[in-house]
Amino acid sequence: MIQALRGLFPFLEWGSRYSRQTLLSDATAAVIVTIMLIPQSLAYAMLAGLPPEVGLYASILPLVLYAVFGTSRTLAVGPVAVVSLMSAAAVGSVAAQGSAGFIEAAILLALLSGGCLLLMGILRLGFLANFLSHPVISGFISASGILIAVSQVRHILGVPAGGHNLLQVASSLIAGLDEANVPTAAIGVTSLAFLYFVRLRLGSVLEMLHMPAGIASFVVKTGPVFAVVGTTLATAFWALDVKGVAIVGQVSVGLPSLGLPGVNLDLVKQLLLPAFLISLIGFVESVSVAQTLAAKKRQRIDPNQELIALGSANLASGLSGGYAVTGGFARSVVNFDAGAETPAAGMFTAVGIGFATLFLTPLIHYLPKATLAATIIVAVLALIDTRMMRETWRYSKRDFLAMAVTILLTLGVSVEAGVASGVLLSVLLHLYRSSKPHCAIVGRVPGTEHFRNVLRHKVETCPSVVTLRIDESLYFANARFLEDQVYALIADRPELKHLILMCPAVNEIDASALESLEAINHRLSDAGVQFHLSEVKGPVMDRLERSDFLVELSGQVFLSQHQAYEMLVRQNS
Amino acid sequence: MIQALRGLFPFLEWGSRYSRQTLLSDATAAVIVTIMLIPQSLAYAMLAGLPPEVGLYASILPLVLYAVFGTSRTLAVGPVAVVSLMSAAAVGSVAAQGSAGFIEAAILLALLSGGCLLLMGILRLGFLANFLSHPVISGFISASGILIAVSQVRHILGVPAGGHNLLQVASSLIAGLDEANVPTAAIGVTSLAFLYFVRLRLGSVLEMLHMPAGIASFVVKTGPVFAVVGTTLATAFWALDVKGVAIVGQVSVGLPSLGLPGVNLDLVKQLLLPAFLISLIGFVESVSVAQTLAAKKRQRIDPNQELIALGSANLASGLSGGYAVTGGFARSVVNFDAGAETPAAGMFTAVGIGFATLFLTPLIHYLPKATLAATIIVAVLALIDTRMMRETWRYSKRDFLAMAVTILLTLGVSVEAGVASGVLLSVLLHLYRSSKPHCAIVGRVPGTEHFRNVLRHKVETCPSVVTLRIDESLYFANARFLEDQVYALIADRPELKHLILMCPAVNEIDASALESLEAINHRLSDAGVQFHLSEVKGPVMDRLERSDFLVELSGQVFLSQHQAYEMLVRQNS
Repeated sequence: MIQALRGLFPFLEWGSRYSRQTLLSDATAAVIVTIMLIPQSLAYAMLAGLPPEVGLYASILPLVLYAVFGTSRTLAVGPVAVVSLMSAAAVGSVAAQGSAGFIEAAILLALLSGGCLLLMGILRLGFLANFLSHPVISGFISASGILIAVSQVRHILGVPAGGHNLLQVASSLIAGLDEANVPTAAIGVTSLAFLYFVRLRLGSVLEMLHMPAGIASFVVKTGPVFAVVGTTLATAFWALDVKGVAIVGQVSVGLPSLGLPGVNLDLVKQLLLPAFLISLIGFVESVSVAQTLAAKKRQRIDPNQELIALGSANLASGLSGGYAVTGGFARSVVNFDAGAETPAAGMFTAVGIGFATLFLTPLIHYLPKATLAATIIVAVLALIDTRMMRETWRYSKRDFLAMAVTILLTLGVSVEAGVASGVLLSVLLHLYRSSKPHCAIVGRVPGTEHFRNVLRHKVETCPSVVTLRIDESLYFANARFLEDQVYALIADRPELKHLILMCPAVNEIDASALESLEAINHRLSDAGVQFHLSEVKGPVMDRLERSDFLVELSGQVFLSQHQAYEMLVRQNS
Repeated sequence: MIQALRGLFPFLEWGSRYSRQTLLSDATAAVIVTIMLIPQSLAYAMLAGLPPEVGLYASILPLVLYAVFGTSRTLAVGPVAVVSLMSAAAVGSVAAQGSAGFIEAAILLALLSGGCLLLMGILRLGFLANFLSHPVISGFISASGILIAVSQVRHILGVPAGGHNLLQVASSLIAGLDEANVPTAAIGVTSLAFLYFVRLRLGSVLEMLHMPAGIASFVVKTGPVFAVVGTTLATAFWALDVKGVAIVGQVSVGLPSLGLPGVNLDLVKQLLLPAFLISLIGFVESVSVAQTLAAKKRQRIDPNQELIALGSANLASGLSGGYAVTGGFARSVVNFDAGAETPAAGMFTAVGIGFATLFLTPLIHYLPKATLAATIIVAVLALIDTRMMRETWRYSKRDFLAMAVTILLTLGVSVEAGVASGVLLSVLLHLYRSSKPHCAIVGRVPGTEHFRNVLRHKVETCPSVVTLRIDESLYFANARFLEDQVYALIADRPELKHLILMCPAVNEIDASALESLEAINHRLSDAGVQFHLSEVKGPVMDRLERSDFLVELSGQVFLSQHQAYEMLVRQNS
């Protein structure tokens, strides 16, 4: 009972051992993450097509809920790039950007996604995330990075543009190029150059200046804040907004109020599939970050409890006027590096963002959108993983195909089409492969009890006793293939008297395959060939004993291939 | 070249050796099949909601095309019960029964289905049929049998009724019960009783009367013809049609004319999915009949060529005013038993049906629909396979689940929902199972080189060297599961120094699983444990050599588990 309660509320575990020292570590980390999260929240809200305060709202209550339910000690949740892009695409297909309906739909999407996650957690469906293969996720994230970066160019140049895939975005960008605004472009390009300098060079410059490594790393992490402050001051000072620089403008002051949006069943239906995909992608991204960080401290993550934690965080986000959130990579790493020891750091961060929402929003009135776009571009270009693409190409063409289709469809059609087709294709490719399994005729490696492929190794064989090793579970997709293999084998060998099917790789024989084995046994009997099995696994044997197959089998079932071969060869010589 | 031509036109093979003796056998079989096929064609056309002549048209040209392209010597194609039901359901959703649009849509469906089959044959996609597992097909055919039988009761009683699932059909039957027509019911029930007597008892009665077995079997097979002739004469004699008995009525005389129906793209779109499902079901049914019969004579079937043959047959059916056809079980067995030796028997049958279309159609004017319904009911009740249901339940609950869902949805929703969900569910269940594979810690069976599960066998083990055997290919769906298993294992065993992953059942390691293995290797190194592999299959090893994994591996890859265990235990003692 207490164990179950601790499972559901992990904070009971770490909370009971909370010390002053831990408090200090957590609070320090919270300050750093807060400074980093403010511009990120504003920028990702813009990417999702939402007013800036929605991004801040999504960074308050969800953090508290994750701290209560989450199993990772250092994961930092909030708005992230890929989920913001997916939210923009989903909501954009049901409401016009800038309308009240758009915000309501984004909130509904967060609630639906929270519901999906919570349901999956309660039903312990965390394994569903396994169907997103690494190449598909990696391809999807890289493609999203490209798409996001290109979509933000319009803010950098100040041209009107839009669209849900690369073609639409690029062509509307080119069409709008005449209308580019010079002051906006100046701010945008300068911010980009500054942020790249901070990211790539500032560290070594500070090192050369003998700044202590801890402070230097802090300065590098807060780079976006300098850009935000600098460009906001410049815009306010020269009144650049009058010269056409798009600014954040009026932001609602104060904490979010709790409440449900009006629920429209038709809208729910339209948003359900995108909500599910967002849940899946958000969950996979979040869990892999959490696992990477947990492994460094030998802690463990419970994926099903993570579903409950992320589900609660998204419900909280929706109820407090925010949009879909998940665990972010960059900010979690910062949180970890800054020394966060427990999820309390997340609660403190929530307090920090709450303060910002109360007191800092008037100060960002003059913040140019171009600066936010620059911070997004710098962040998402790091998501593009060309090394993974090269390695996958080298290792497996089939995995690369799934990855390439995911990338092409994400860029060329839509984010949803990209993920969905990636998952579908990897499942189909897996099924296709296992429907034509590897088979080998094996012989004995001289002087051992070991049997290997006659084509790859020098082995002993006997013409009247042939052993076929099938390297796959036998199930509906390959049952007929096995029959074909066996019939071809006996057709070529008139001297054959015993066929041994060696099953070390057979982990299941389903009802379809059982019928095929019965057919093989029957047909071999007609041809005067005895049919034997060897090395059948325990669970498979248990199952076979429930059918009539073993009674009808013309030969025997041998524990080891060695016994089978010894006995049958001796009989026949 | 000649080989390829013979592959595409199998008649070149058997045609070159055609003799007078073979001609006689084929012609005799053709006469018997023709007599059986006439009432069947009329009945199944009625089941499909089509005029009787459409059933006859579907039994002429398609037989000729199958004879040219088919690889089975004895398969008899034409209208069959399950495909007729599926055709009725698909066409009924786009046009009203009895309208000209209904016939046109049924013809279009046959053309689309022919196109699907032909395309699958050209692309050599015959393996797709493997995804229909035996339990799903068996469940679907049984459920279709029930649905067809119940739907024909309305013709037996002469009440108006309809619907696409059991609930709809049954409730409309009950609602219409008041309007039952007494003479119709008399004919229907008598026909049913007579046909059951012929099927179940007539054989033994004739045997008691010392009739030669060949003739007795012929008499039993022609039972439906007696019912047809008897009830037609009775209806004509007493003018029962005036008393409310529904009759076949006016049938177009003459051979079908060739031509394409008007093509409506919208209609094509709506019928494409049903056409694909009909193709798949028809193909599976036909190939399994053909394979069963071919096996008896040690002949072989080429599934991809069968796709081309059935595709051509369906195109021919559509072009000559017929509807979807496939290989039928009952008539193929009759053809086989009657001594058909080559597909020429099919051509002769086509000539026979052509004759009937030219000269016999006026004679069936008074044929009561109740008689046709009785022949359908008797034929389809034989499709219900309760033995298969019991055996599947006993053998595998998972397979039974797929079967039960197929049956329930076919009966309760629609035939398409039944097949589609059966296929989807069996794939999902397979994936779910392989995402949580069987794992075992193994030890050596004393005195052998054989390693088995420590929980099932008395084996030797060593605390510092642990071997984990994973009984499944490693791929995206179970990569994370493997990691969890390994981490749990090392957490429980502080004395562990060497972990051997025994891979005799690992037939593939995809890119996702490779990443997991890299992570495991890395984490075990941190914990001071060496990671080894044993019994890695050749193709898997080839692939691993293309990655950096083998370079980074802290331990070794051993050819056999025996070598690995010997060496590592000796090192540590």
